[in-house]
Amino acid sequence: MRVRSQRLHMLCYTMMAVPSSTYPRHLLPLFLGLFQGALLLFFALFVIYEEPSAQAEDTNLVAKQVYRTFPFFQDIQVMLVVGLGLLLTFLPRYGFSALTHNFLLLNFSMQWALVLQGLLHHFHHGQIHLDLHKLLISEFAAVTVLISVGAILGRASPCQLLIMATCEIPSYLASEWVIVTCLGVLDVGGTITIHVFSCYFGLGVSKALFKATQQPLHPKKTPTTSSDLMSLVGTLILWVFWPSFVAVLCQPGDAQHRAILNTLLAMSAGAITTVVASSLLERDGKLSPGHLQNGSLAGGVAIGVVADMAMPPVAALALGSLSAVVCVLGFRFLTALLRRKLALHDQCGIHNLHGLPGILGAAASVAAVLVASEDTSGSQPSQLSPAGGNGSEVVQGRWGGRQALCQAAGLAVAIGASLLAGLLTGAALGLPCLARPPERLCFDDSLYFKIQDQAESPGPDSSAEEGALALKEQV
Amino acid sequence: MRVRSQRLHMLCYTMMAVPSSTYPRHLLPLFLGLFQGALLLFFALFVIYEEPSAQAEDTNLVAKQVYRTFPFFQDIQVMLVVGLGLLLTFLPRYGFSALTHNFLLLNFSMQWALVLQGLLHHFHHGQIHLDLHKLLISEFAAVTVLISVGAILGRASPCQLLIMATCEIPSYLASEWVIVTCLGVLDVGGTITIHVFSCYFGLGVSKALFKATQQPLHPKKTPTTSSDLMSLVGTLILWVFWPSFVAVLCQPGDAQHRAILNTLLAMSAGAITTVVASSLLERDGKLSPGHLQNGSLAGGVAIGVVADMAMPPVAALALGSLSAVVCVLGFRFLTALLRRKLALHDQCGIHNLHGLPGILGAAASVAAVLVASEDTSGSQPSQLSPAGGNGSEVVQGRWGGRQALCQAAGLAVAIGASLLAGLLTGAALGLPCLARPPERLCFDDSLYFKIQDQAESPGPDSSAEEGALALKEQV
Amino acid sequence: MRVRSQRLHMLCYTMMAVPSSTYPRHLLPLFLGLFQGALLLFFALFVIYEEPSAQAEDTNLVAKQVYRTFPFFQDIQVMLVVGLGLLLTFLPRYGFSALTHNFLLLNFSMQWALVLQGLLHHFHHGQIHLDLHKLLISEFAAVTVLISVGAILGRASPCQLLIMATCEIPSYLASEWVIVTCLGVLDVGGTITIHVFSCYFGLGVSKALFKATQQPLHPKKTPTTSSDLMSLVGTLILWVFWPSFVAVLCQPGDAQHRAILNTLLAMSAGAITTVVASSLLERDGKLSPGHLQNGSLAGGVAIGVVADMAMPPVAALALGSLSAVVCVLGFRFLTALLRRKLALHDQCGIHNLHGLPGILGAAASVAAVLVASEDTSGSQPSQLSPAGGNGSEVVQGRWGGRQALCQAAGLAVAIGASLLAGLLTGAALGLPCLARPPERLCFDDSLYFKIQDQAESPGPDSSAEEGALALKEQV
Repeated sequence: MRVRSQRLHMLCYTMMAVPSSTYPRHLLPLFLGLFQGALLLFFALFVIYEEPSAQAEDTNLVAKQVYRTFPFFQDIQVMLVVGLGLLLTFLPRYGFSALTHNFLLLNFSMQWALVLQGLLHHFHHGQIHLDLHKLLISEFAAVTVLISVGAILGRASPCQLLIMATCEIPSYLASEWVIVTCLGVLDVGGTITIHVFSCYFGLGVSKALFKATQQPLHPKKTPTTSSDLMSLVGTLILWVFWPSFVAVLCQPGDAQHRAILNTLLAMSAGAITTVVASSLLERDGKLSPGHLQNGSLAGGVAIGVVADMAMPPVAALALGSLSAVVCVLGFRFLTALLRRKLALHDQCGIHNLHGLPGILGAAASVAAVLVASEDTSGSQPSQLSPAGGNGSEVVQGRWGGRQALCQAAGLAVAIGASLLAGLLTGAALGLPCLARPPERLCFDDSLYFKIQDQAESPGPDSSAEEGALALKEQV
Repeated sequence: MRVRSQRLHMLCYTMMAVPSSTYPRHLLPLFLGLFQGALLLFFALFVIYEEPSAQAEDTNLVAKQVYRTFPFFQDIQVMLVVGLGLLLTFLPRYGFSALTHNFLLLNFSMQWALVLQGLLHHFHHGQIHLDLHKLLISEFAAVTVLISVGAILGRASPCQLLIMATCEIPSYLASEWVIVTCLGVLDVGGTITIHVFSCYFGLGVSKALFKATQQPLHPKKTPTTSSDLMSLVGTLILWVFWPSFVAVLCQPGDAQHRAILNTLLAMSAGAITTVVASSLLERDGKLSPGHLQNGSLAGGVAIGVVADMAMPPVAALALGSLSAVVCVLGFRFLTALLRRKLALHDQCGIHNLHGLPGILGAAASVAAVLVASEDTSGSQPSQLSPAGGNGSEVVQGRWGGRQALCQAAGLAVAIGASLLAGLLTGAALGLPCLARPPERLCFDDSLYFKIQDQAESPGPDSSAEEGALALKEQV
Repeated sequence: MRVRSQRLHMLCYTMMAVPSSTYPRHLLPLFLGLFQGALLLFFALFVIYEEPSAQAEDTNLVAKQVYRTFPFFQDIQVMLVVGLGLLLTFLPRYGFSALTHNFLLLNFSMQWALVLQGLLHHFHHGQIHLDLHKLLISEFAAVTVLISVGAILGRASPCQLLIMATCEIPSYLASEWVIVTCLGVLDVGGTITIHVFSCYFGLGVSKALFKATQQPLHPKKTPTTSSDLMSLVGTLILWVFWPSFVAVLCQPGDAQHRAILNTLLAMSAGAITTVVASSLLERDGKLSPGHLQNGSLAGGVAIGVVADMAMPPVAALALGSLSAVVCVLGFRFLTALLRRKLALHDQCGIHNLHGLPGILGAAASVAAVLVASEDTSGSQPSQLSPAGGNGSEVVQGRWGGRQALCQAAGLAVAIGASLLAGLLTGAALGLPCLARPPERLCFDDSLYFKIQDQAESPGPDSSAEEGALALKEQV
């Protein structure tokens, strides 16, 4: 019976024409156009390239840095544009929007972060020198937006998403400045600064924007086999290139080598443990696609903060496994609990993929710092602390305790700042002028794109049936 | 009413069996087999590898060059084989053909260019020394064919496409020799030599081949959601790796660094401006998938010719934005106009993606050269001109004027030569022996591949309906 | 008539609910969980990272090695996780399983190989030093499992696949030790050690597991257009990155450069020859998707064993063409013959893609060694033999004869050992506790995954029809 009523729902959704007044057509181009204009002005006034190197040695150095950074940079671009984009296509009628909005937000946020970071950190004598490293840092800032969006995927208009990005980037920069510069938190892979921050920012937005709405499962939200397959391909692309994301900002040499290995181990252990956990938790031992799509990546989220630290390989394996378990448990129990108890919607389950493993990683970094500070025989403390240590045991012990506190404080700052900023942003997104789509039109590409009516493509509720019905009416 | 008559059309197309006589089955293997035989003979007689390096230093040098070039080379391979292939799969019943023909043409054209370039440029003492750089140059030649094919996608037989490639490669090599070697045009990313040339060559072929045919919209040409999604994935892959395409042939060091940055900026601005332009031009502010798939890449086409020049970052942003606007305007108005006024068919809109932005890029290069030649304080002219300059203002000014003229002349040569060669090639392709498929069988994989009847896969016109009809007839 | 009965079959298959007793739900997580636990213990006891480099020079060296190996490593990861995964999705209702099982097996086999190789080769003073190179070697071992699985794709449970991997990895390590270390076989791309071995291992398993079953074509085995398209995308990804797979373990410098070039030439020739062969062999000259998906890669399989040898470029072209012909001929005639005469099932045709081209490559290596040993004027023997040669003609000639014998012996060992190990493994897989799925439930994702009923997605037999039937029953 439930299936049939769902189908009727579906037909209603499909047959209702989208009224042209729902969507204020000029807001999006106006906003984006003004932004591009302002960006041009800003670049014209302030941004220049580095002076060309005068000497052959400098040229060689530049070349070397390009060859070192650029392959990593490309890997990360593939992750964000193709991998993450495809991962979000699991909603069967919202794939085109997911891919396009992800792409648009990446570009917008990256440019916006470039402007803000230029003003804040790189403004010397009225000029900002642009290089590949600064673009990379801006790209990292943009990642936070792409993650946060997962909480409200399919239910917000592009304008809302852009306003959200506009608010999130400065919040991220402020929070990252406090965490990394003031507190001196070690977080080479962005576990705390990026993953934890963006998760709770997204949840804050979702909570403030959709506070009281408690509705039944939207029929367009059920993935189809082919949308699940596309999403899994996205997961695999992210899985493959994750080590590049974690290791790109490491010190070349041992630290980077170790970061790559740790990430590979954590992701490999996470992939297998996901299968174990999903199989144990689901009825009949069948695996859930959602668990696979997310759990396989949880190890990568958690390992970021400790990837370049001097810890034994077994720690990376254990952290990867544990993250995957936590992530799958989150999907199985926590998401529903949050929806029931807190009326908190988390469309993609970012709390399970980014929040919980991120917190786990932060805890692991506290432990790693404490262990490393007590272990004076083995690894050098300089591997851990950029501030270095003079090797004396007492100093090292003190450093360890202080650093461990800092890591914990960094986590607290990330969670607190992001929740606050997210709630405020979510409240702002509720403004009527931003045109949140009505619930019945959500999760559908045809609201934003001139595409073929999706009734003819295989939806979750038999397109055949709708086609046949339509036929009957025609004949 | 229009929809129903379209559906009837569709059914007719589907139900008509393909007569086996339409397609001369032995022409394709015969042609390709002979070509492979000739290639083997050519390689056996003339082509050898470089002598192995005698000394450790040389070995290091070779290794260094391999590590420098190979990642870029792989990126470009991904672009051409996977990215461009997927971009062309937007025709819902022609995806397999688009991907396969693209792949076949890439290999054929690359081998054919290897032979011709070996004979023309690298023939010393009866031998041709093969290395990765020469393969890369041949790959660039092959790109022209892959672009040109877009004008007649779905309407030409594989044999016609191969003959087209056979004619286009020598035309390209001649035109590139005139433009780069004789005129000294600066065009590191191939904007003029590759994009503009291949666009007008393709249009010439299309004009000569389909001159008088003015038919209604072919029902199989309407993309479905899933074919649009695949095509967008192709766009995103191209978008990500475009900087590698532009920068691979740059001088290592500052010039290459600048080329990468300029391309990234242009493509990022282009992506956002595409959304602005498409949203403003379409009814209801909805975005058109075709605009996104092409406009996002227009910035990369235009930036190629100026990417390594010493210009401010704002110029790259502006050029990227402008190209995207021009491209979207082209799709919105020009394509239909050309079809109506000139009976010119441009299936993929290559004129909008490669022609217009290419001309814009060429104009930008004229401006960049003129500005650089007047600006004696800042950047060194050696960054611009491979011929260098001795720094005196007068000489530099003269160099600038002459070089600007050359850039303009290069554009004229590219357009003129390609149109002429394209028209001639198109006329040759009309020979009956090449078996152009009849219009009603176009845009369909089943003409060339042993695949499942596509009526059962979701086509633009409800597969459900056809299925139901078929069922009724059976019952 | 055949079509209608097939459709009825199909409906029966679809409508029969999967009894929950068929699949022992706890076996998979139990096995994997125990394995992960043991792995953690093993890592905790024995595995450490290299000591951090004490000096700046060492750091530079480590950095250099990372930058040299890591891009190749990533390419290979893309091949195995995304490319090979997608290639296996040609079964329309088994795509999700193919992708997931491939991913799971890669991780499991890699970890298992890491343990075994650590114990066998790298165990010093109770410790195993982990680095990127050892991970890469383990990844190569895992490839054998991924290839072998192709023979029984869709007909074995995940538990069976894992047991198969558990048996195959030690067999591979033993066989590889005999072939490379004892016999001194030159095989830089793994043609003999990986491709030939895994092919005959897979065939052995298939023979022992499905010995007497001779059934009609399973309706779910017919690819649809969209599953064929996904599979072709997988082929193209493999095609693009194949040179990285072959060249990653070569000596940097000339040998690696040559390996890349040889692989590119062989794969390019193979792609074109596949079209020729498929077109000649199929009715009406239409191309078969299966031929394209496999034949295009055959050149890469064959070239591996000779890729870094000093042979003329024409040899690579010829070998690539020949492999493609052999592969297509195998698909056209041999697969059916093996099924009829030997009751041997080879689901993906791994014998055509890995077995035949592998044997061809081994034969080519014998010829290359013999030719090189007689040719004293040109290339240095040290390019061929790691053992080197002092240049005297007699010694070289002797070396050549001995080495040629070794290559042949290596091939014989690979075939013999893999067949034996495969047959034994296959017999073990027949144990009832491993829960081989009954034939009527094979080739279906829904046996292992909680996914939407695939009846609604476009299957090979009109989803429309089933939908319409279901509708009739409801109305």
